[in-house]
Amino acid sequence: MTVATQSIDQLCINAIRFLAIDGVEKAKSGHPGLPMGAAPMAYTLWDKFMRFNPKNPKWVNRDRFVLSAGHGSMLQYALMYLAGYDSVSLEDIKQFRQWKSKTPGHPENFETPGVEVTTGPLGQGIANAVGLALAEAHLAARYNKPDAKIFDHYTYVIMGDGCNMEGISGEAASIAGHWGLGKLIALYDDNHISIDGSTDIAFTEDVCKRYESYGWHVLHVEDGNNDIEAIAKAIEAAKAVTDKPSLIKITTTIGYGSPNKADTAGVHGAALGADEIELTRKSLEWNYGPFEVPEDALNHFRKAVERGASAEAEWNQVWATYKTKYAEEAAELERILSGKPPANWADALPTATPADKGLATRKHSEVTLNAIAPVLPELIGGSADLTHSNLTEIHVSGDFQKGAYENRNVHFGVREHAMGAICNGIALHGTGLIPYGATFLVFSDYMRNSIRLSALSEARVIWVMTHDSIALGEDGPTHQPIEHVASLRAMPNLYVYRPADTNETSGAYKVAVESATTPTLLALTRQGLPNLEGSSIENAEKGGYILSDSEGTPDLILIGTGSEVHLCVEAAKALRANGKNVRVVSMPCVERFEEQDAAYQESVLPKAVTKRVAVEAGATMSWYKYVGFEGAVIGIDTYGASAPGGVVMEKFGFTVDNVVKTAETVLG
Amino acid sequence: MTVATQSIDQLCINAIRFLAIDGVEKAKSGHPGLPMGAAPMAYTLWDKFMRFNPKNPKWVNRDRFVLSAGHGSMLQYALMYLAGYDSVSLEDIKQFRQWKSKTPGHPENFETPGVEVTTGPLGQGIANAVGLALAEAHLAARYNKPDAKIFDHYTYVIMGDGCNMEGISGEAASIAGHWGLGKLIALYDDNHISIDGSTDIAFTEDVCKRYESYGWHVLHVEDGNNDIEAIAKAIEAAKAVTDKPSLIKITTTIGYGSPNKADTAGVHGAALGADEIELTRKSLEWNYGPFEVPEDALNHFRKAVERGASAEAEWNQVWATYKTKYAEEAAELERILSGKPPANWADALPTATPADKGLATRKHSEVTLNAIAPVLPELIGGSADLTHSNLTEIHVSGDFQKGAYENRNVHFGVREHAMGAICNGIALHGTGLIPYGATFLVFSDYMRNSIRLSALSEARVIWVMTHDSIALGEDGPTHQPIEHVASLRAMPNLYVYRPADTNETSGAYKVAVESATTPTLLALTRQGLPNLEGSSIENAEKGGYILSDSEGTPDLILIGTGSEVHLCVEAAKALRANGKNVRVVSMPCVERFEEQDAAYQESVLPKAVTKRVAVEAGATMSWYKYVGFEGAVIGIDTYGASAPGGVVMEKFGFTVDNVVKTAETVLG
Repeated sequence: MTVATQSIDQLCINAIRFLAIDGVEKAKSGHPGLPMGAAPMAYTLWDKFMRFNPKNPKWVNRDRFVLSAGHGSMLQYALMYLAGYDSVSLEDIKQFRQWKSKTPGHPENFETPGVEVTTGPLGQGIANAVGLALAEAHLAARYNKPDAKIFDHYTYVIMGDGCNMEGISGEAASIAGHWGLGKLIALYDDNHISIDGSTDIAFTEDVCKRYESYGWHVLHVEDGNNDIEAIAKAIEAAKAVTDKPSLIKITTTIGYGSPNKADTAGVHGAALGADEIELTRKSLEWNYGPFEVPEDALNHFRKAVERGASAEAEWNQVWATYKTKYAEEAAELERILSGKPPANWADALPTATPADKGLATRKHSEVTLNAIAPVLPELIGGSADLTHSNLTEIHVSGDFQKGAYENRNVHFGVREHAMGAICNGIALHGTGLIPYGATFLVFSDYMRNSIRLSALSEARVIWVMTHDSIALGEDGPTHQPIEHVASLRAMPNLYVYRPADTNETSGAYKVAVESATTPTLLALTRQGLPNLEGSSIENAEKGGYILSDSEGTPDLILIGTGSEVHLCVEAAKALRANGKNVRVVSMPCVERFEEQDAAYQESVLPKAVTKRVAVEAGATMSWYKYVGFEGAVIGIDTYGASAPGGVVMEKFGFTVDNVVKTAETVLG
Repeated sequence: MTVATQSIDQLCINAIRFLAIDGVEKAKSGHPGLPMGAAPMAYTLWDKFMRFNPKNPKWVNRDRFVLSAGHGSMLQYALMYLAGYDSVSLEDIKQFRQWKSKTPGHPENFETPGVEVTTGPLGQGIANAVGLALAEAHLAARYNKPDAKIFDHYTYVIMGDGCNMEGISGEAASIAGHWGLGKLIALYDDNHISIDGSTDIAFTEDVCKRYESYGWHVLHVEDGNNDIEAIAKAIEAAKAVTDKPSLIKITTTIGYGSPNKADTAGVHGAALGADEIELTRKSLEWNYGPFEVPEDALNHFRKAVERGASAEAEWNQVWATYKTKYAEEAAELERILSGKPPANWADALPTATPADKGLATRKHSEVTLNAIAPVLPELIGGSADLTHSNLTEIHVSGDFQKGAYENRNVHFGVREHAMGAICNGIALHGTGLIPYGATFLVFSDYMRNSIRLSALSEARVIWVMTHDSIALGEDGPTHQPIEHVASLRAMPNLYVYRPADTNETSGAYKVAVESATTPTLLALTRQGLPNLEGSSIENAEKGGYILSDSEGTPDLILIGTGSEVHLCVEAAKALRANGKNVRVVSMPCVERFEEQDAAYQESVLPKAVTKRVAVEAGATMSWYKYVGFEGAVIGIDTYGASAPGGVVMEKFGFTVDNVVKTAETVLG
């Protein structure tokens, strides 16, 4: 019997290792190396520290766990199965990386209940975790009472060398250190191997010293393969430091236990193969078959179910007390936790008529944010050091800072990528917070993978992107978006709104707040725009609509977005004066328009009307679908230029005259 | 007279400050704060250290200067004017940020000779500088002789707090420390103000300690406003350390000299205004009018012209010696410096016929890289830790490492964004090197701004992006590109190639190497593909071409790229068997096709043939331009899924059957 020779801890650790080995082997695809090396730290964390309820993965006050090294997904699936999550059965583990399985190649929160965030792209997870820890700190500061701590959990991360090489992790760690998020604890799996081989070839910095420079509390466990006592002590020490996040560097061996592949890149991302698995079984004295988990290990691991149930029950008591003693806060909190805005919240959205002075849509955004912030206490966010350009400050609140976690204005610093992932973490905290993150539209490039992950992982985030075209002027081509709006439209499950005025900006925010599983990106102008006749919140919600029309069948349809809609309106007037029937369609959000039924779409863009001109100060690509072979697109497929915004717009053809001329050519 | 009260150094420093003040004031736009604070360090560097020839900005062995804090562009323009560059006259400074001026909002290498790289997006410049320093180290190791050092220059950078907050700078600094690039010297303008205010609100890390953790040599000048001796000493000390890059933190006051605005965010990005300028003149005892430079200052500064001429003359001697004594190396070097590949280099490109075993296009890329590496010694690059997945190793060379700078395989680590900017720096070193950088296509998101800057700044870089669709399989949606090919096509001045086989891959490389001012991005498959009948290098160069055709006018055109072309070929056979005239167009590069003349385009895609189906395993957006209202696109506008590649492709409709069925629907 092997059991006798292995402690229960060892048995559990090896059970994780072999589930990973067997899962990857069966799939003939995956990453066994990390789970084999990180099993001791993961087991120690899950078995001896983490508070969670496998039977209720949505329990509000659970500790959050993030596998930032997402390629090691089998580690997480093994832990979840062993701990008793219903979402990952042994059968699911056998279906690792197969069509429609609950165990995809990388952890996906939208596929597998209990997975908090979607990881795989390196460095995102640790930055998500900063967002999770921020959310906990914020909600605790806002809602906790001395006799009723509703929010009181840790955020734990396992990250690898790859995560630490990515710039996003440095950004996130720097701001987490600044904020002093003491309940964020990152276990750094220092296995000194990445895909290309030893980290000696490209990664020789002193990681611990770097985290110290960020203001983190840093610890080192030298033997992460065997010394689980040292791991436990380090986690204890990390928990004891409450004013700094902690990094525990845990030195391990990738593929631990594999006689020929341990400590090599060969075990990082490929199945071990039958022979090496056999040798690994021998080396780890594992006398069980594939996917076989010794009963003792399972029984021990499954105590998590009972622990979790009683932890949640305890918390339910606290919550009951809270609801009794602090009924008002409890009611607000319950509503926020539901993820739904209050009834009639949208009444707060500003509207305007053409008589109202038109402003830049970034200014409309500011007015809107400040109009809804009082009725949506769950709104929290800020800018990557462009607060007064993006106009994202909420005036009813102060700055989120160490010692002032209750505040809602977040200064992310010049860290777009981390901002993106932090916002995703806030949204995926699952407590109803609505994060927003802002920068210049051109710098969406710096955070594109985070935007993508908001869309993929169905996180309700509002991306506030200002200075949305060449019309920003003097800053020149490095700052002028060209391809950005089109290229963001190509991203699935993202609403890209480019509103034209007050009403459309409000409509965009309405959609953003009410879309529980789709993030919204707002492309907003630097320059002033008039309020338009015919716009409304309801129209904007539809994504595209008839802003103005002639009697009868249109000879021509002008389609515009944002700052170019008013050019279309003026051009239509001129064309109508020449006897043409011209319809103007404002299309602030192509994706929403595509979601409308066919009849509505046909009513706006009748198939029979093939003379169409789309006008947008950006790449033309996304408009050919709507103008066809007979139409034209007025756009820009080169880089912009540095000069005052009005000059640049004129030089690039964004004038009423040019719209009229182009329309006349199309009309023939 | 003011002159008597100011040393010549002080006079020169204030001349820089007031050119910046006056330039921004006249434009009513720009960033005076950084130039005012950084003038002492910039003057010290340019006047007392930098070796450059204002009259020949392309002199090969010049020191490279990068203003990573590109918003302070007036600093660079002032320096260039004062030092005697022909590209920046006083009139140009008066035209700051105006249409077609040589002094755009941010420094642009393609507008202003003497500007090495295009900066503005923060953190890019310092990472470009790592590339410049890498290029110098590499060329020196390859070509220098004990008695003839052709390459022997420094790379100097001025960077700010914003640069240091961006993750890309951390990535670049980490790898530069690893490589020990001793001739890279960064002056960190520590003015502790960013746009949102004091760095206290978001940036309180210990930057010096962080750079020490990267292995840099770190110095601190406490009074950067006045103590130019200390600045000079620090630069001396930095030069003396030859095995580590140096960071000199220089503490300054933003907007130094402005009584009311210095040390505030208000002076960062806005003109001072007439009143404050007047007060600043008084405070700095500057009795000169707008744009007036005291003759003493100009005369002193302009000594750079003479110094530069003699430095270059000296170097010319060395070069003459080199050419005499090392004729073979000199000939190779001269050819490389010309930026042109050797005659007949393209003969090395592999070709294949359908009889040749088809492989993954990433494999064809590997074969091609290794076929051309021997004839193109200027080829240098590598992967962001995916060398054996991207297949980018050059077998004729070893690894570029500290002590082995002569080698051409670069390990960037998991640092895509820095890789991008480093490649840009290598290309913009202007010495003919052709860098390539590789990762998974989905992670182009991590380096998108660097790719954009390669395109904007006309840098000949080859971006090798593998695993180009959902067909990569098990890794799942976090790793499966959907919108990437389309969204990169939207980026101006970038050739996006998605080749279908050996010949098209070779064609893509031919274009990449021969396009001096346009970078090329290759989207390559993980999975194997057949070699196609009808493909050729020449065809691929045209971007789109008729791969196979029926007799007579086509009833239908199938347009495919990359891994979907062979589906089109098979579908065409089936359709032809049913009596339809079907043309198959392979379109590996839309941008190149768009560059062909109208007659050629018409010959491939005749306007009269409106029944068209485009097939590409990615977002559909870019194809509507070519299929119109009557056509169809087989693509993917959702995220992918984790499962074996073949399964995923089938489930998403990338099958011959589905192409046939769709074509039949289109044919009606």
